[in-house]
Amino acid sequence: MSSASEMMGKVRDTCPLVHHITNYVTVNDCANMCICAGGSPVMSDAAEDVPDMVRIASAVVLNIGTLNPRTVESMILAGRTANEVGIPVVLDPVGVGATPYRTETAERILREVKVSVIKGNHGEISVLAGLGGEVRGVDSRSSGDDMSEAVARLAERTGTVVAATGPVDYVSDGRTVAVLSNGSAMMSTVSGTGCMVSSVVGAYVGACGVSVDSVAAAISVVNIASEVAVSGRDVSGPASFRTMLLDSVHSLRPEDVDRLIRRE
Amino acid sequence: MSSASEMMGKVRDTCPLVHHITNYVTVNDCANMCICAGGSPVMSDAAEDVPDMVRIASAVVLNIGTLNPRTVESMILAGRTANEVGIPVVLDPVGVGATPYRTETAERILREVKVSVIKGNHGEISVLAGLGGEVRGVDSRSSGDDMSEAVARLAERTGTVVAATGPVDYVSDGRTVAVLSNGSAMMSTVSGTGCMVSSVVGAYVGACGVSVDSVAAAISVVNIASEVAVSGRDVSGPASFRTMLLDSVHSLRPEDVDRLIRRE
Amino acid sequence: MSSASEMMGKVRDTCPLVHHITNYVTVNDCANMCICAGGSPVMSDAAEDVPDMVRIASAVVLNIGTLNPRTVESMILAGRTANEVGIPVVLDPVGVGATPYRTETAERILREVKVSVIKGNHGEISVLAGLGGEVRGVDSRSSGDDMSEAVARLAERTGTVVAATGPVDYVSDGRTVAVLSNGSAMMSTVSGTGCMVSSVVGAYVGACGVSVDSVAAAISVVNIASEVAVSGRDVSGPASFRTMLLDSVHSLRPEDVDRLIRRE
Repeated sequence: MSSASEMMGKVRDTCPLVHHITNYVTVNDCANMCICAGGSPVMSDAAEDVPDMVRIASAVVLNIGTLNPRTVESMILAGRTANEVGIPVVLDPVGVGATPYRTETAERILREVKVSVIKGNHGEISVLAGLGGEVRGVDSRSSGDDMSEAVARLAERTGTVVAATGPVDYVSDGRTVAVLSNGSAMMSTVSGTGCMVSSVVGAYVGACGVSVDSVAAAISVVNIASEVAVSGRDVSGPASFRTMLLDSVHSLRPEDVDRLIRRE
Repeated sequence: MSSASEMMGKVRDTCPLVHHITNYVTVNDCANMCICAGGSPVMSDAAEDVPDMVRIASAVVLNIGTLNPRTVESMILAGRTANEVGIPVVLDPVGVGATPYRTETAERILREVKVSVIKGNHGEISVLAGLGGEVRGVDSRSSGDDMSEAVARLAERTGTVVAATGPVDYVSDGRTVAVLSNGSAMMSTVSGTGCMVSSVVGAYVGACGVSVDSVAAAISVVNIASEVAVSGRDVSGPASFRTMLLDSVHSLRPEDVDRLIRRE
Repeated sequence: MSSASEMMGKVRDTCPLVHHITNYVTVNDCANMCICAGGSPVMSDAAEDVPDMVRIASAVVLNIGTLNPRTVESMILAGRTANEVGIPVVLDPVGVGATPYRTETAERILREVKVSVIKGNHGEISVLAGLGGEVRGVDSRSSGDDMSEAVARLAERTGTVVAATGPVDYVSDGRTVAVLSNGSAMMSTVSGTGCMVSSVVGAYVGACGVSVDSVAAAISVVNIASEVAVSGRDVSGPASFRTMLLDSVHSLRPEDVDRLIRRE
C-alpha cells in the first residue's frame, strides 16, 4: 500500500490521460483541476471519436450532469471500450434520485459497463445504495443515517469502489471503509467541486490502479488543498476560493499531505 | 412591498432551486452566480429530464445564447411544465434581433409559454418592443431613444415584467417603471454578466414572487456588488473583476444594499 | 507593414465581431480572452443561426476540440458562408492526429472551406504537414525536428498562413517564417491557452487582414501578456495565472509590446 503522498507523486510523474464525457457546466474546472492534479484531461463525446480516444487513455470519467440521449450512448460506448482495453471507469451519477431519467441512466451504465469507481455525494450514493437519501437538483439534501453502510453495501453489490463525498467522505470496496475528514466548508460554495474530485479520481486510478487507497488519496489531496487554500490571505469568497483551490492542488507538497491527512 | 435587502435575505434563507436551460458559454458563471446570490442552480436540457426537474424547481431560466433545435424544444417543454406547476419563467432573449432564428425563437417562446419576466440588454428589449434597437452578435449596440417606453410597452403587450439592463436599468410591469442606476462599468468587460443577472433574477422571483420589485432587487444586488468589487484593491482587469463580483454578491450585507441602492 | 502594437490598437479601435464554433471546455475563456484583446465574441453553432451570424462577423474561428457530426456540419456551413462574404476563417485543429475522426474532420474542413489561418500546437501542425509529430489527447507530445519546415510546407500546400504554437512559435505563409519566442511556461499549465490564442488570432485577422504579421501579432500579444502576468505578485499557480493573463491582455500597453517583443 502506497501513501496518498506517494500516489500524488506517481500521478504527477506519469501524467495519465483521463478521457471525460461530462457536463458542460463544470467541464472547464474539471479540465483545469485534472491538470493541476498532474493528469492530462481530454473531453470528447462523439461516438465517432470516443473509442479511439479511450484507447489511448489511462482512465475514463463518466459524469451525467447534463446528460442527453446522444451523450448517454457515447458514455456506454466509452465505458465498453474502456472495459475492452482494461482501463478504469469512474462514474459520477450527478443528480441521481432527483429525476427518473438520471436514475435510469445511472442504473443502465452500471448494468452495461463494468464500472470501477462510483463517486457521488451523500444523497446520490444513498439513493443508489437503496437506503433513501434525498437529492434536490444536483445537491445532496440529506442522506441515510449511516454512510458507512451505504458505501459498503453499494460497493459489495456492484463490485466497485464507492466514494460518498460531503463534510466527511466515505470510501469502500465492500470489505473496508475509509473515513476521510479533511476539507474546507468552502467546497460546497462552488459549483462542481464534486465533479472536479471525480476528475482527480480518474487521474489517480489511471496512474495507481483502482483501490480504496487510490480513490481516498485523490479525495484527500483535493480536500487538503482546500484547507491550504482557505488558510491563505487571498480568499474573499467562493470565486477566489476556487482559484486558490486549483492553485493549491497544483502546488501541494507531499509533506503537506502527510502532515494534514485525516483518514480512519 | 419588501425592500431589496429584505428580498436578498429571503433568497438566502430559502435557497430556491433554479432550473436553467442556457448557453454553454457562460453557464458556469451562471451556476456560480446563482449560488453566490443564495440560490441552488441546476442545468439540464434533455427532454427526457426537463419536466421532472422543473417540477421540483422554484423558477425556470431560459437563455437562448447558444440555441439549437433540440434545446429550443426543451425550452418550450420546460416553460410549459413551469406554467402547469405555477412557477415563474425568466426569458433572456440573447442576441434577439441579430439573426432571424433568434428573433423567431424568442417570439415562439413568448407565444407558446406564459413567460413571467423578459430580461435583455437595451438593444434586445428595443427589438422585442418593436422600437428599433440594434444587436450585434450578442451585444447591444444602440437602443431606441426611450428605454422607459420600451420596457413599459413590451411589458404591457406581453403581460410580463420586462427588464432592460445596461448602464442604466429599466424594469416595468406595464404600469410603473423602476429606473436603476447602480453598477460598475467593468460589468461590460466580462462575457455573460447579463446571463448571470438573469440567473439571479430566477432566484429572486423563485423566492419572492414575480414583481417589478423582485426583478429590480435582483439587478440591484448584482450591480451594487459590482461597485463593491471595484472598490477593493484586487481588481486589475476583467478576470479579477469577475472573481470579485462573484465574491461580493456572496458577501453583500443588507446594510450595503440599503446604503448604496439607487432606484427611482 | 504595421507593427504588432499598431495592430493591437487597430483591434481595440474597431472591435471586430468574431464568430466561433468551438468546444464547450474552453469556450468561456475564449469569449473573455477575445473581449480582453479588443474583439467582440459570439458563439453559435446551429445551422439555423450560423449563416446569418457569420454575415455580420469580421472573422470565423473553427475549433474542433469537442466536435460532433452536427457541429462539424455547422463548421462547414460557417466556413463556406465566410468564404462567400469574404471574411477570414481560422482553423484550430485540436487533437488532430490523436484520432481518425479528428484528422478526417480537419482534412474535410480544409478541402471544403477556403481556410485563411491554421493555428495548432507543434504536434498538430507536424501531423497536418505530414512530418510525423505526436498528439496525445489534445496535447502536443513531440514534434518533427524542424517546425520551420512544417509551417512553411503546410502553408504552401494549403495556401494559408500557418502558426505552430509552443515554447517557440512559428508562423509562415509558405515564403517567410516568423519565429516568436515570447511567452511564460505557465501557459502550458492552463487548459485552453491554445484555443484562447486562436480567438485572438480571429480578432486580429478580422481587424487587420490575414498575413504572417497579423497572426504573429496576435500570438505575440498573448505571450507578452503572459510574461507581464507572471512578473506580478498575484500568480500562485495555474488558476491565478489565467486570471492575470486575461487582465494583462486587457491592459497591455503598446510600449510594452514594442519593448518586450521577440520576433525573428
